[in-house]
Amino acid sequence: MMATIKVHGSPFSTATQRVLVSLYEKELEFEFVNVNMGAGEHKKEPFISLNPFGQVPALEDGDLKLFESRAITQYITHENPDKGTQLLCTGKQMAIVSVWMEVEAQKFEPAASKLNWEVFYKPFFGLTTDPAAVEENEAKLANVLDVYESRLAQSKYLAGDSFTLADLHHLPNLHLLLVTQSKKLIDSRPHVSAWAADITARPAWAKVLAMQKS
Amino acid sequence: MMATIKVHGSPFSTATQRVLVSLYEKELEFEFVNVNMGAGEHKKEPFISLNPFGQVPALEDGDLKLFESRAITQYITHENPDKGTQLLCTGKQMAIVSVWMEVEAQKFEPAASKLNWEVFYKPFFGLTTDPAAVEENEAKLANVLDVYESRLAQSKYLAGDSFTLADLHHLPNLHLLLVTQSKKLIDSRPHVSAWAADITARPAWAKVLAMQKS
Ligand SMILES: N[C@@H](CCC(=O)N[C@@H](CS)C(=O)NCC(=O)O)C(=O)O
Ligand SMILES: N[C@@H](CCC(=O)N[C@@H](CS)C(=O)NCC(=O)O)C(=O)O
Repeated sequence: MMATIKVHGSPFSTATQRVLVSLYEKELEFEFVNVNMGAGEHKKEPFISLNPFGQVPALEDGDLKLFESRAITQYITHENPDKGTQLLCTGKQMAIVSVWMEVEAQKFEPAASKLNWEVFYKPFFGLTTDPAAVEENEAKLANVLDVYESRLAQSKYLAGDSFTLADLHHLPNLHLLLVTQSKKLIDSRPHVSAWAADITARPAWAKVLAMQKS
Repeated sequence: MMATIKVHGSPFSTATQRVLVSLYEKELEFEFVNVNMGAGEHKKEPFISLNPFGQVPALEDGDLKLFESRAITQYITHENPDKGTQLLCTGKQMAIVSVWMEVEAQKFEPAASKLNWEVFYKPFFGLTTDPAAVEENEAKLANVLDVYESRLAQSKYLAGDSFTLADLHHLPNLHLLLVTQSKKLIDSRPHVSAWAADITARPAWAKVLAMQKS
């Protein structure tokens, strides 16, 4: 069944990357369908029938059509408990994974994605970075990373001793922070820095980055 | 075990209400611990040990301490499959519930909560509403509700024929939209309007509102 999986998206989209890295961690085969965002393909049929919000990624598994990257990674992981890396837990430990998945979505990503827009994407598209927006979102992200620093002093990964979806969901935005001036926010916090080095070194993540070159 | 559940929060906090309505739907007993936010109790010990981000709600179930409202509702539902309302599904149908839970968190709540801040909380606290922020977030929310209108023309609830956490998570912000000028965004969309009337009429939601009076 999983051999029929199709991922629609762009290897340059952080939300698409979140899905791709979960597929590589689970060692699943899939077909990648590139959505030409420059040509606006994500706002037109046939894509809009996969995601009415017109955003990448979307996934097809037979008749099932899904969107929202974090819903897709959870589906992939639940359907394939015996393949690749164990990315979820059961019972009470699963509740802890849920808490830190929510923290990524509610706290980390809003600040990190706005910051990455200013310091990575804007220069890339020839637009001018807004210093006030950088300052505001660096301050917000610093507060979030202070909580991570205490948390990661107690356990190697956010939800405990093993790598889970709670860590994995950070990879796309974390990678961009590390290749921009925002790296200082990571470097200045030793436990966050060790965690970031550890998770960005995973072979599954290297495979996602390699897709940008093909 | 579930008899020991303690919810820390405020009955006026939308995130706390999300947890409370899930407990009432599951017909579980719990102890409510009021956090005096006016006195800043959520930013100090002992609360800060329950949620390092200093926001309500938080939950204790024996030794387990959780925060983030949507992680808590999922925990409550997973631990109590045989009690009260079935709020989740299994297998592929669960993936659809996940998609619409993500839509609430990623699309509906950012626009609805900013709008509610302007049109409900600001007047309540004697602050001045910013018309530009109202306009911006009404436009964002209108786009989201257009997608809901098509979706709810196909199925009675967001994830299919039965009420799930995907619908439930909307209740606190939806209630505030309905008691402000933003009601027009709901009223102008017949399927959204019928859905909103249906889910806000649930007895579990009336129990949450009653807590504001005690
Ligand atoms: N919450 C969504 C976000 C998806 C998203 O923002 N996708 C971006 C690319 S990373 C996109 O399609 N942008 C184009 C647009 O919004 O028009 C998810 O996690 O899948
Ligand atoms: N994503 C969190 C949001 C929690 C939240 O925003 N709580 C608000 C009350 S509804 C709060 O504690 N505000 C006080 C503050 O942020 O200082 C959740 O869903 O639990």
